[in-house]
Amino acid sequence: MNSDMLIRITRYYRALNRLRAIGLEKVFAHNLADAAGVSAAVVRKDFSLLEIHGQKRGGYEITELIERLSVILGKGEAQDTVIIGCGRIGKALMHYSGFEPDGIRVVAGFDTDPVVYADASNPVPVYPMSRLDEVIAALGVKVAIITVPESAAADTAEKLFDAGIRGILNFSPITLKPHPAAPGENPVVIHNINIALELEQIFYELQFPMVRK
Amino acid sequence: MNSDMLIRITRYYRALNRLRAIGLEKVFAHNLADAAGVSAAVVRKDFSLLEIHGQKRGGYEITELIERLSVILGKGEAQDTVIIGCGRIGKALMHYSGFEPDGIRVVAGFDTDPVVYADASNPVPVYPMSRLDEVIAALGVKVAIITVPESAAADTAEKLFDAGIRGILNFSPITLKPHPAAPGENPVVIHNINIALELEQIFYELQFPMVRK
Repeated sequence: MNSDMLIRITRYYRALNRLRAIGLEKVFAHNLADAAGVSAAVVRKDFSLLEIHGQKRGGYEITELIERLSVILGKGEAQDTVIIGCGRIGKALMHYSGFEPDGIRVVAGFDTDPVVYADASNPVPVYPMSRLDEVIAALGVKVAIITVPESAAADTAEKLFDAGIRGILNFSPITLKPHPAAPGENPVVIHNINIALELEQIFYELQFPMVRK
Repeated sequence: MNSDMLIRITRYYRALNRLRAIGLEKVFAHNLADAAGVSAAVVRKDFSLLEIHGQKRGGYEITELIERLSVILGKGEAQDTVIIGCGRIGKALMHYSGFEPDGIRVVAGFDTDPVVYADASNPVPVYPMSRLDEVIAALGVKVAIITVPESAAADTAEKLFDAGIRGILNFSPITLKPHPAAPGENPVVIHNINIALELEQIFYELQFPMVRK
């Protein structure tokens, strides 16, 4: 399975949970295709590779599909994460309702500013950065979201790796590079979301429609 | 020029502006390579394709490079955007300092909630959704950021297209699909940032390191 297929499967999985939530029992390949932004033929091919078979004309049983995909996606595992840097974006993510349908929980935040970590209105505990190692170890968390200012991003990533974090979603405009893996260890996973860069590309693609893929 | 090269060039451009801001005058291919997360050979190849030549051993003049790249990137054009949905994430983006170095300005927000659009603490004017067409036309804005709840996203996108918006950065978990272009028109540009999906993929890649590209 390659990354593109993985992205599609997580999209099918999300769509299926939403369809189930509104009371549906059956789904057709073209419904999932619409939800994932691909063609129905791609959905059928993915399912056939995964040896998932629908009923002729009847589509797929949603509950059964969710069970099958959740095994493939390794659901049931804790999907806990922490937020490093509790400014406006960090706080918005602490309150973000879009994580829930995917079983992702923000369990703690970290900040250098005592005003931030002593704020009683935080929806999850926020700790001083000095307690990073201890709290990460106690919570057993492996994935962190970085929402610190640009100047602190690289340093923050190092501290997170030292504390045992294995996956980072980075919102700072610095592109964090994969950390060299220790012998016998898997490399850490880093996804960078550069909001300004995304916008800039939109402006550029509007100006020069020909450069689009 | 393909999209990957475009992404690299916007990254070089950002890095160059930052280097100039801290007083540097010259830059080497490997500096830009570090900033863009590619190898120095890729930087040299990109510049050679763009017919930008450095001095032997001396690297590139930062000011000259910025000028060249800004022509390629079509800078100088207004890069104004509006935010649709001024909840926590929308508000965080209104205050986001990371847009400034790229010349991107958030010039207005829109919301359905009078409590939100009447709030005097908003850093830019926030208008009721009912005034969308009128305000977008008056501001001449072509790009919008969607931070509305999932259930409102598809409908919001339609309203934006009708109001003349040509590019959308979508933060809602719904994958917005490209709008069919009218005859003779360029299709609209849509970038989807699905925060939960990004996190989910990180969890998945950590669990199954083999599926990574």
